[in-house]
Amino acid sequence: MTRVQLRLYFNRDRPIGPGKIQILESIREGGSISEAARGMRMSYRSAWLLVASMNAQFKKPVVNTTLGGRGGGSATLTPFGVEVIHRYRAMERATRRAIAKDLAVLERGLRARARKSRKKAPQAW
Amino acid sequence: MTRVQLRLYFNRDRPIGPGKIQILESIREGGSISEAARGMRMSYRSAWLLVASMNAQFKKPVVNTTLGGRGGGSATLTPFGVEVIHRYRAMERATRRAIAKDLAVLERGLRARARKSRKKAPQAW
Repeated sequence: MTRVQLRLYFNRDRPIGPGKIQILESIREGGSISEAARGMRMSYRSAWLLVASMNAQFKKPVVNTTLGGRGGGSATLTPFGVEVIHRYRAMERATRRAIAKDLAVLERGLRARARKSRKKAPQAW
Repeated sequence: MTRVQLRLYFNRDRPIGPGKIQILESIREGGSISEAARGMRMSYRSAWLLVASMNAQFKKPVVNTTLGGRGGGSATLTPFGVEVIHRYRAMERATRRAIAKDLAVLERGLRARARKSRKKAPQAW
């Protein structure tokens, strides 16, 4: 099935898209930015910067962080952060429904792909 | 106003998104890949590769090219290429409508940005 990605360019900020939302969801699950970063194979610094940019662009923060202490700091989603996730995922679903017909027409135009076999071809013998 | 971008990941190909569609539109206007590349500040090679990937992923080509001759080759959109543009732009409009309410809520949550003045501050005198 065709994956559909939505990117929202507010003002002149970098867009909010699937990556930032996945970080928020990961923080919601794991309660830490470093764990979210590991799960997405990005550096702690990158994940932190993405969170900071979201915190800066909205009136209310999306993530609250507590500093250091034993075992490092923690990060928790704010109610507004939860709302951002929900709204984004709702927009994705609404988009899928809204574009379904046009998308199906393009999909019918796709060339059938020779699927790369995951198994190696058997040796001739 | 928030810009909304749509990226369609068919199969395992690179997505079709605003960049590829802009190349098709530019070829429709100018009739050449090199002109489209210049207009988008990308190399001829990059633009050509993007066109080739679209030609390869659909059963019917989106662009027909004629080779060389005096003044270089030309590129023309096929009827299917025109359809791809129309469907994509229609999907964009449908998306805007479908996400309008959720988007408006997020927009109301945005921090007012100090707009960078384009004029220099007047000299005090």
